[in-house]
Amino acid sequence: MSDLKRNLMRSRWLAVADLMKAKGYDALLLTDTADVRWLTGFTGSNGAVLAITAGPPLLATDPRYAEQANEECPEVELIITRDLIEQLLLRLREKGAGSLGVDPTTLTLAQFRVISAHPGMFGMSIQEVDSPLGRLRMRKDIHELEAMRQAGHIAAESLGQLLTEIAVGQTEIHIARTLEAIMGDHGSADRSFPSIVAAGPNGGQPHHSPSDRPVGAGEMLTIDFGATVEGYRSDCTRTVIVAADPEEWQVEIHAAVLEAAAAGRGVAAPGVRTRDVDSAAREVIARAEYAEFFVHGVGHGIGLDIHEPPMLGSSSKGKLHKAVPFTIEPGIYLPDRGGVRIEDTCVLNDDGLEVFTEFPRELIRVG
Amino acid sequence: MSDLKRNLMRSRWLAVADLMKAKGYDALLLTDTADVRWLTGFTGSNGAVLAITAGPPLLATDPRYAEQANEECPEVELIITRDLIEQLLLRLREKGAGSLGVDPTTLTLAQFRVISAHPGMFGMSIQEVDSPLGRLRMRKDIHELEAMRQAGHIAAESLGQLLTEIAVGQTEIHIARTLEAIMGDHGSADRSFPSIVAAGPNGGQPHHSPSDRPVGAGEMLTIDFGATVEGYRSDCTRTVIVAADPEEWQVEIHAAVLEAAAAGRGVAAPGVRTRDVDSAAREVIARAEYAEFFVHGVGHGIGLDIHEPPMLGSSSKGKLHKAVPFTIEPGIYLPDRGGVRIEDTCVLNDDGLEVFTEFPRELIRVG
Repeated sequence: MSDLKRNLMRSRWLAVADLMKAKGYDALLLTDTADVRWLTGFTGSNGAVLAITAGPPLLATDPRYAEQANEECPEVELIITRDLIEQLLLRLREKGAGSLGVDPTTLTLAQFRVISAHPGMFGMSIQEVDSPLGRLRMRKDIHELEAMRQAGHIAAESLGQLLTEIAVGQTEIHIARTLEAIMGDHGSADRSFPSIVAAGPNGGQPHHSPSDRPVGAGEMLTIDFGATVEGYRSDCTRTVIVAADPEEWQVEIHAAVLEAAAAGRGVAAPGVRTRDVDSAAREVIARAEYAEFFVHGVGHGIGLDIHEPPMLGSSSKGKLHKAVPFTIEPGIYLPDRGGVRIEDTCVLNDDGLEVFTEFPRELIRVG
Repeated sequence: MSDLKRNLMRSRWLAVADLMKAKGYDALLLTDTADVRWLTGFTGSNGAVLAITAGPPLLATDPRYAEQANEECPEVELIITRDLIEQLLLRLREKGAGSLGVDPTTLTLAQFRVISAHPGMFGMSIQEVDSPLGRLRMRKDIHELEAMRQAGHIAAESLGQLLTEIAVGQTEIHIARTLEAIMGDHGSADRSFPSIVAAGPNGGQPHHSPSDRPVGAGEMLTIDFGATVEGYRSDCTRTVIVAADPEEWQVEIHAAVLEAAAAGRGVAAPGVRTRDVDSAAREVIARAEYAEFFVHGVGHGIGLDIHEPPMLGSSSKGKLHKAVPFTIEPGIYLPDRGGVRIEDTCVLNDDGLEVFTEFPRELIRVG
């Protein structure tokens, strides 16, 4: 672990300690994998953390991850066990805690029952705090932003290579897996989520799963994908046209989405309400008379999770801030016919809007 | 949807209705994606189901999945909404329910709070039932077994192709993504979990994430992966040796794991205790004096989830049964040095043990 990373990690512990003191609880139990990674650096799939107000957090994981946790988290107190939560709770009293914060949005009811009935909890109060790290994780530090920048660049470079390889007759699954392999060779630890590849009528479903349907000439092809660098994700969508000149309806809906995405990016600035970004894009699509076919919000926060606060939808609360990355991704989906989505991962910095996934947005002809 | 699938789906609804009547609740709320898929056929990432004692279940999903849910679930009652649980609860009374079962192992505490406080729940009792579908989902029907058989065959075929393409200098990530792409071209809808590829010292970690470390000559390479067919998964691991003849210690631990896996498969029969399969494999590894380096249970159930009941560990309860697929996967992990794991997905049928992932288990030399 570099000195920079070590210091950033320590400053997270201090920030969480301040949060706990302000909210009035002495320890905080976290089980969400992204929360665990953010607070300890541990990347395994099975970990739980107890944050305390003084000193490094305690990390519990099972024996499969013992060596890995030792390497990744040199400064945390490590507990190797099969009963993660139980073992952490046994340490509460030693650490002088009288109250425990838990996150009801990630804790299962069964886990909560275990905690409530645990002998270590006798006389201790439990406070339920929704997504306690949400606000802290939202604003990214310089190291996180650099990882997301790389994840964006890898996505864009990889798409460029993929588009030269697409051909009529390839299946959606083939295209999805090829793209993920290209991203791996460009430095992505893994896809940031299962790639969506939707050709022709399948593009009419916003979240189509890639199928074994071969791509045909004259079909639009929507590719929604992203890369991961040190756990941080990018999210990018482009719609292209395969082996033909586009028909008029294809040009029309693509142009509307293109303009909507530009409108969304155009209004994005520190202090702007998230819902106003949604409206800016939605109004363009409404003017083109496709309002009913834009069936989701215009974007979402992104970081260690592919979807995290803030949400950018018509009823979202909150504002945009510097160093809080988000996506802008309007779309039009015509059932049984086809669809278009254009999406970028962005962040506001001192120079304005930085797009991590910069890549041409026009209706490029491929194959 | 074929007639066979339609009938199998209906028989699941009847089985769940019988379960509810036996346990004494009138409706059952399910939010786990595998539970939702098993009971409705819906494959989207955001769905919730209310099962009732008479008639098809109610499925709630958001507008992104409206068209897809219509196609996939022609016989269920569909609710398109952004408030999945709330909308389902509003229908409880219309359906004549006086008590609701919920699954604390998959419900978050926050979801439980929403349910408890919901006006629709006034005067209604809530019963917490751990994994209510667990026992029903464990025993696979003929359609599920055929999907798993295919998922196993695809995994084996794909590994065969991959091994001809491995070369010194390829990164673990490159090998992982290449294998996933090959599986896609062989008919896998997607990997059944993120592939583990661990070369040389990385093999000393049972659950290593593929890295950008290039594979070197003389290193053992562990590949743990699987395919998915109609949601059903396979899980397979082989360890090979790269571009060299193996050293003595490599031959020794590979031989011990090979014999342990054979011992596990050898004792597997209907009615045998799951823990006895673990012991059979563990004793072989203990005799070879590597007991402390086999740090996990010998296997797990598998189906729509990559890990599901029954567990096969040293303290597991329960027995093996026909039509309940499981893995057998002993391993030896020498920290900082290397490791071996050999895993197959199997099922007991009328003719004995069927291995879905049949592929040579010897220490094959590749590259």
